[in-house]
Amino acid sequence: MAVSRRTIRAMDEGGWIRHMFEIGIQMKKLHGEDKVYDLSLGNPVMEPPQQFKTRVKELASSPSVGMHRYMPNAGYSWTRTAVAEMLESETSIPFTANDIVMTCGAAGALNVIFETILNPKDEVVIFSPFFGEFTFYIENHQGCPVIAPTDYSFQPNLEALENLITHRTRAILINSPNNPSGVLYPELIINKLSSLIQQKENQYDTEIFLISDEPYRRIIFDGAAYPHIFRHHNATIAVHSHSKDLAVPGERIGYIAVNPEYTEKAPLLDGIISWNRSLGFVNAPAMMQNAIRTLQGISVYVDQYQRKRDYLYDQLTGMGYDIVKPQGAFYMFPKSPIDDDTAFVAALQEWNVLTVPGKGFGSPGHFRISYCVEDRVLEGAMEGFARAANKFGL
Amino acid sequence: MAVSRRTIRAMDEGGWIRHMFEIGIQMKKLHGEDKVYDLSLGNPVMEPPQQFKTRVKELASSPSVGMHRYMPNAGYSWTRTAVAEMLESETSIPFTANDIVMTCGAAGALNVIFETILNPKDEVVIFSPFFGEFTFYIENHQGCPVIAPTDYSFQPNLEALENLITHRTRAILINSPNNPSGVLYPELIINKLSSLIQQKENQYDTEIFLISDEPYRRIIFDGAAYPHIFRHHNATIAVHSHSKDLAVPGERIGYIAVNPEYTEKAPLLDGIISWNRSLGFVNAPAMMQNAIRTLQGISVYVDQYQRKRDYLYDQLTGMGYDIVKPQGAFYMFPKSPIDDDTAFVAALQEWNVLTVPGKGFGSPGHFRISYCVEDRVLEGAMEGFARAANKFGL
Repeated sequence: MAVSRRTIRAMDEGGWIRHMFEIGIQMKKLHGEDKVYDLSLGNPVMEPPQQFKTRVKELASSPSVGMHRYMPNAGYSWTRTAVAEMLESETSIPFTANDIVMTCGAAGALNVIFETILNPKDEVVIFSPFFGEFTFYIENHQGCPVIAPTDYSFQPNLEALENLITHRTRAILINSPNNPSGVLYPELIINKLSSLIQQKENQYDTEIFLISDEPYRRIIFDGAAYPHIFRHHNATIAVHSHSKDLAVPGERIGYIAVNPEYTEKAPLLDGIISWNRSLGFVNAPAMMQNAIRTLQGISVYVDQYQRKRDYLYDQLTGMGYDIVKPQGAFYMFPKSPIDDDTAFVAALQEWNVLTVPGKGFGSPGHFRISYCVEDRVLEGAMEGFARAANKFGL
Repeated sequence: MAVSRRTIRAMDEGGWIRHMFEIGIQMKKLHGEDKVYDLSLGNPVMEPPQQFKTRVKELASSPSVGMHRYMPNAGYSWTRTAVAEMLESETSIPFTANDIVMTCGAAGALNVIFETILNPKDEVVIFSPFFGEFTFYIENHQGCPVIAPTDYSFQPNLEALENLITHRTRAILINSPNNPSGVLYPELIINKLSSLIQQKENQYDTEIFLISDEPYRRIIFDGAAYPHIFRHHNATIAVHSHSKDLAVPGERIGYIAVNPEYTEKAPLLDGIISWNRSLGFVNAPAMMQNAIRTLQGISVYVDQYQRKRDYLYDQLTGMGYDIVKPQGAFYMFPKSPIDDDTAFVAALQEWNVLTVPGKGFGSPGHFRISYCVEDRVLEGAMEGFARAANKFGL
C-alpha cells in the first residue's frame, strides 16, 4: 500500500472545495470558460493593489544583498516591527516585534500553533459551519476537534458551548468574518465567550487559549468595527494572512500575533518559532516578507465586495432563498432548499453554477457561495439559482 | 503550562545550529562583525545568479493577471513540466508534470512525504551524521527515526544496516551530497543499498521507500557525476530545493519527484498533493514557482565552493586535523581533536571561530564547518583552528 491509513481517510473525507475545483476545470473544458459560473473557490479574481505591485517591482529592480537568504525563523525584525506597529495602532496594546512571528499564511500559522500547544488528545473547539481544513490542522498535531453549534444567525451558541468545554479543552478557535457564512462576531459575543472560557479555566484549573483566525479581518461591510480579542482574554493568539486583503493567496504570507500581555509568552513564542522551523515551513517567504512590510493596513476592494454581497443577497432572497446576511469576507451560506445539500449543489451544476455543499463545512443543509468573482459570473449564475428555486419550490 | 510536552522536549534537544546562530549574533555585537568567523550556518553568502534576478525583475515588471492567486496545490503545470523535462534530460526516464509536486523547499517536501506514507510507529532509517531536523520531520508524522551508522568515510555501512531494517521499516532516507559531511554516495553504494532494500522487502513482504534528499545535488566537485536513485529501486522519491543551487533559501521553493515507474504512483501523488495543502503549506510560493521555471539546471558558484573546499581541506589537514575530503555541498566534518566535541567547539569560540558540534548531527566526536562564506572569513578562521590544533596537541 503506497500510502498511510490516515492518508486514505483524508482522501475519502476531505477536500470538498478541491473536489468542486476539479469539477469546475472539467466543466469549463466542456462548456467553455465563459459558460461556467464558478462560485466554489475563495480565490479572489481581484488583482493585488497597485501598492503591492509597485513594492514587488522595487524589490526586484534594486535587490539588496542577502535579501533571498535565510533570516531568523521568526522573520525579519523590520517586518515584525511593522506588523506590531499596525496592531498597536489598531488595538492600543503595546505590541513589539517580539510578539509577532511571520508565517506561511494562516494555514501554516495554525499548524505551528497547534503543534506548539497541544498534547495528544487535547481538544480544540470549533464552531460549525467551519473551514473544513480546521479539522486537519488540529488532528495533524494529535488534537481532537470538538464541533460546537451556532445559532440561527451563525453566532456561537454559548449555552451549548458551556457543556462542550471539558478539562481536555486546550483552545477555542474562532474565525470571524467567517468562512463560509460571512458573519462577523460582535464585541459582545467575544466578551461573553471570553468570560465563559475564564469560568471554565477556573472550574478545571486549566489554561484555554482563544485563537482567532482572521484572514478576512479587513473585509468588513456596513462600516462595522473589528473587535480584537486581546483585551478580552489573556491567553489569546491571532492569526492573519495577506491572502485575501492583498489578494495574494498563492504567495503564502501571514503572521501570528501573541497577546503582548499573555503571562507565559516567552515559552509560547519560543515554541512557535521553533516549530515554524521544524514543521518544515522554516520561515515565511523572504521577498514577500519584505513586500508586505510597507503594506500593513491596506485592503483591496472592500467596496466592491460589499456591492457584490448586496447584489447577490437581494437577488437570492428575492428568489426565496433563506440567507443570513454576511457582514464580511466574500462568502454567503444560504439554506439549501432541500435537506440534501449535495443533491442541491449537483442540481445547480445542471445550469453550470458551481457552489460547495454545506457538509464540507460541517453544516449539511446549506451551501456556500464564494462571490470573489467578476460581476458577469455572478450575473450569469442568477438564471441557475432562479431555476433551482423554481424546481425545488421556493 | 503554555506549551506541550513535545515542545518542551524539542526546545531542550533540538536546534544546535540555531543555538550557534544566536551565539554568533551575540559575538558579532561584542567583537564586531568582521572579527567573528562564523562557519556555523548553511546560509550561502553568495548572491543568486544573475538569471534569477533578471527573471524576478521580469515577473515584477510585467505581472500577468492572476500570478499571485492560488493555483492547483501541486503547483503550476508549466513549472512542473519544466522540472520534468530537466529530470528527463538528466536521467533519460520519461518524467511528466504529473510526477512532480512543487513544495515549500525540501523541508516542506519531506514533511509532506512522511505524512503521506507513514503509519504510527513506522520506522525511517537515516544515516549518521545527519541533518538534525530529519528526526523532527519523521516524528512530526508519528514515525520513528532509526539511526544507521556510516563507515570511516561516512558512506552507509550496509552490513550494519541489514540488521536495522525490520518489518516496521517504511523508508530509508539518504542525503547525498551530505550535510554535514559533504560526502557523495557513489552509484555503487546506491545500487547495493537498493539491492538490500529489495531483499528486505521480499523477506518481510513490505514496501520500503528509498527517499533521496538532494538540495546539494548540483554542488559537486572534481567532475563527479550525480547518481540518481530512480533506476535502482521502484519505490523512489527524490526531493530537491533551490535553496542552495540558486542561493535563495529564504524563499522556500523546491519540489518532490516521484519515480514515473513507481507501481502505485497515483495514490502516492494524490496523497502528497493533498497533504501539501492540509499540513498548511497549501502550495509553493507562486512567484518563486514562476521564477525557477526557466532556471532548471542552473547552479551557483560550484567552482568557488570547490576552491574554498580545497583551501580549507589543505589548511586544516596541514594542521593535523583528520578530515574526510568532501565531494560536494559546502560542509566539512572533521574529527574533533578531543572526544568532547561541544568542548572543542566552545574552545574554538575563544578565537571567535563558530562551528557546530557533531552531536547536533548524531555524530559526537566531530564538528561541522560550513564554508559557504567569504574568503576573508575562512582565512580569518585559520588562526583559531591553528591555535586549537596546538592547544589539543595535534
